[in-house]
Parts: sequence; structure tokens; C-alpha cells
Amino acid sequence: MTTRGPHQIEIEVRYAETDQMGVVHHANYLIWFELARTELCNRSGLHYRKIEEAGYFLVVTQAELKYRQGARYGDRVRLSCELERLGSRGMRFRYEVRRDGELLSTGRTHHIWIDAASSKPCRIPAMALPFFEAMGAAQS
Amino acid sequence: MTTRGPHQIEIEVRYAETDQMGVVHHANYLIWFELARTELCNRSGLHYRKIEEAGYFLVVTQAELKYRQGARYGDRVRLSCELERLGSRGMRFRYEVRRDGELLSTGRTHHIWIDAASSKPCRIPAMALPFFEAMGAAQS
Amino acid sequence: MTTRGPHQIEIEVRYAETDQMGVVHHANYLIWFELARTELCNRSGLHYRKIEEAGYFLVVTQAELKYRQGARYGDRVRLSCELERLGSRGMRFRYEVRRDGELLSTGRTHHIWIDAASSKPCRIPAMALPFFEAMGAAQS
Amino acid sequence: MTTRGPHQIEIEVRYAETDQMGVVHHANYLIWFELARTELCNRSGLHYRKIEEAGYFLVVTQAELKYRQGARYGDRVRLSCELERLGSRGMRFRYEVRRDGELLSTGRTHHIWIDAASSKPCRIPAMALPFFEAMGAAQS
Repeated sequence: MTTRGPHQIEIEVRYAETDQMGVVHHANYLIWFELARTELCNRSGLHYRKIEEAGYFLVVTQAELKYRQGARYGDRVRLSCELERLGSRGMRFRYEVRRDGELLSTGRTHHIWIDAASSKPCRIPAMALPFFEAMGAAQS
Repeated sequence: MTTRGPHQIEIEVRYAETDQMGVVHHANYLIWFELARTELCNRSGLHYRKIEEAGYFLVVTQAELKYRQGARYGDRVRLSCELERLGSRGMRFRYEVRRDGELLSTGRTHHIWIDAASSKPCRIPAMALPFFEAMGAAQS
Repeated sequence: MTTRGPHQIEIEVRYAETDQMGVVHHANYLIWFELARTELCNRSGLHYRKIEEAGYFLVVTQAELKYRQGARYGDRVRLSCELERLGSRGMRFRYEVRRDGELLSTGRTHHIWIDAASSKPCRIPAMALPFFEAMGAAQS
Repeated sequence: MTTRGPHQIEIEVRYAETDQMGVVHHANYLIWFELARTELCNRSGLHYRKIEEAGYFLVVTQAELKYRQGARYGDRVRLSCELERLGSRGMRFRYEVRRDGELLSTGRTHHIWIDAASSKPCRIPAMALPFFEAMGAAQS
């Protein structure tokens, strides 16, 4: 468990992520958010793979995205993710995508916990709680 | 130019759209929304390809998605799209994804017009306006 | 179980499948081949989903692709797939992608059967054999 | 222009790259090969973006892939790429994907040069030749 606040990851835009408009197709930002979220979990000491191995899924129930500027092939973009809300049954993360400091996109994703065995929503697993608490979101 | 109201398209879920959770990865819904939006334009008589050939891009500035149930490989899902708001410089579309009537997902996308030559926002092109007017959204 | 020979499916190119070269990104042809293969199985009476439900995976071990002309957004392309070789432990399929009769791409994929429980290669399941035999490939 | 031989890049498997079989979908290896090829060009001093800015496309005409073991979410995989053949009008690259030394996949892609203005095949541009020569492939 490490320090609070947003974590960042830098990626290089892939050619396959562009579309014929010459910029990154807007659906890829959800995939980038997922990379940043995975990285935040990893750095907190809880690889997302361990969550599934423990019998849980962290399922996206809602997403919002704002697009300001398009990323281009060859750009290096900085993805940041922070835990914005930690509840007993769900969480909300917030994201930013920047290129050389310029804000390209922002977004949020909302998640609930699913017990893989029953496929039903459940409370946050005890094995995961301390790691998310350490991320420092407002609890509710 | 045809009738008002939402248009629908039916697709079969692709294997490559699934992830290891056994359902369609959530980023694909933005691609499905785009299919439904393309189909709405086609049926109105304006293929989106013609918009780009005329020197314009219809760029996504915002998107919201709600996920209720996951679609699975082999499912046939029905995508619907309607124009919810038609403005002089932008538009908003609304989407539904259903499987056998059951609502799997809903969403909205917001768009602005970009002049390809200048890369700057512009008013809705005269060549496109009648087609979108015929879709019957509330104007503003 | 139906007639022999290749089966065809027609799809419309998705915007998200293009890249900044203005044509469909070359990786998508493997996804299209998979659609054609799925359709061939469906028409033969064996939905691929049933194979996995029976405890087997049909895994790709090799693929070859030739690209002659690029498909573009809005194109309707015709995908065909035929079973080229049916063995006791594997299969080979052959594909064509055409636009208005013009050949855009060809390819092959090689597959083996995996027993999901053991994760080991196995013989073609008895539940699947008659369907693939009915496709009429040269046996070996 | 730098040293000869294959260049390597390490990536972490993305969740969105998996499919319901629990491994990376086979189409993504073509995207990974492209990442490794881009990296090889970058390290040689020629960012692929500069090729397009100079008015050329390096188009894939053929691809072959062999799949031995599947990569999984969370795996770190090492992608390597080397220029295998350098001709006056085309090139061939060879790829390997490894996880902890274990070979997961190999492949080749064949490319030709296209003049963007005429959309016709052309000779390797003078601006690009020295960089590819420095990669040290057998010439022909």
C-alpha cells in the first residue's frame, strides 16, 4: 500500500488506435482508462488479476467521457486515475488524459462488485478493502 | 428522408468483442452506438461517408454509458439510435441496446461539427441539415 | 447439416475498423475471418457457443493473410469461408474478402481442439464431427 | 542510426485484449507486431510518423502468425522485431513474442511502399533507405 492521490502511466499511441479522422478513435479512451485503473491497483499492491482469482469481478456500470483534443499516432500521453468514491458495494474512479500537460480528455467510471460464483452483486471483498482504502478516496 | 423516431439495427456479438469476464468488453458499446448512428444516417439518406467527402467531421465531444446486463458471444442484440437534440453547431444522440427486449445498455453521445480544412468548429453544413431535421429531434 | 462449399456473409465496414491510412486496419481481417467461420458453423447447425458449452475450445495455431486492396469505411464486403482440411485433431479454413466481386484479401487459419478441463489438445469431439464432415473438406 | 539485430519492447497485456477463452485474442498479435516494428523504427531514428509526413505509406501485403501459447491478462510479454529482408520496393520483418523467455508466438509481415499522392507502389524513399539499411537485413 502506497501513497494517496492519482497515479499515472505514460503510453505511446498505437497506430491501430487511430481511425480515418487521423486521431485516436473515441472508444479507445475507455481502454486507456482501464490501463490507468489497473496501474493504480498494481501500485497499491493489488493486481486486478488477484481480484478475479479470489472469485470477484469489478464490473463497470456507468462511464462518462469528455473529449477536448484528439491524441495522434506517435503521441506520448499521460493517463492518470484516482479513486474518487469508495462505497461498501461500489466505487467511482476519475481519469485524465494529457499530452505535454495539455488536457485531452477526462472521464469517470462507476463499478460494482460481483461474486463470480453467484453472478450477484456483493460487498467489497475483505481481501480488497485495505488496498482501496489506502488510495484515499472520500468514503461514503 | 424517411420517418421520424429511432432506427434499429440488429447485430450478432463477435467473439473478439468478449473479454475474459465472458461478456462483451464495455468499450465496444461505443462502437455499437456508432454503428446505430451510422445506420440512422444511412436510412435518412445521408451516408456518413458523404459528410467527410464534403469536408466535415462530426466529432464526439462527450459520451455517457450505462451498463445493466452484459451481452454474450452469440447473442443477437438490437441497437437503436435517435437524434435527441439538433443545434446549429452540434447534436446529441441517444442509444439503447436490447437482447430479446431486455435492456442491456443505454447511452448518449454529443457531437460538434468540424471543418476539415481549418480543423475548427463550424455550423452544421447546409448539405446535412435537412437530413438531420427530418430525424425529428427537438431543435434548439 | 446443410450443403457443402463456402458460406458467405456480408458486412458493412465499421468506422472504428479504419486507421489513419483511411482503410481498414490489417488486424481486423482476422476478426472478419472469425465472423465468416462462425457463420459457416452456424449454417451447418453447430453454433460455436455450443462447442465451448460442451467443454472444448477450437484454438487458432496458425494464420496467413494476403492483402491486395484495402476495404474502406462504408464499403459492403462479402466474407466467405470454407473448411479446407478436416483432421482428427485439427482443421484448416480458407477465407476470401470481396467488394463488388473484387478480391481484397485471402487467408487461412489452422486450428486444434483443446479439452477445456485439462487444457490439453484432444481429438475432435464426437458432438462436432458430423457437422464438420458435412462441410465437405478433404479428410486426412 | 543504431546497432543491428532485433529490438525489443516489453508490454503488459491489457484486459481489453483478452477474450472469453481467457487468453489474448489472436488478432491482437498483429497489433503487437506493429508496436514492435514501430519501436524498431524509432530506435533506428526514423519514427514511422515521419514516413507518412513525407508522403509515403508502408503497407502490409502479407502476414503469417504461429501461436504456441496464449498470453494472459497481467502477463508482461517481450516483443521483438527484426528486419529480415530489405528490397528496393518492399521489406519483410520477423517477430517473436515471449513471456519469461518462453516463446508464445512468432510471425512475419511483408510490406510495400506506396506513394500517398498517387496511391501507387513506389521504390523505398531516399529519406528512409539509410535507416533500414542500418538495421542490417540481408539485401536483395
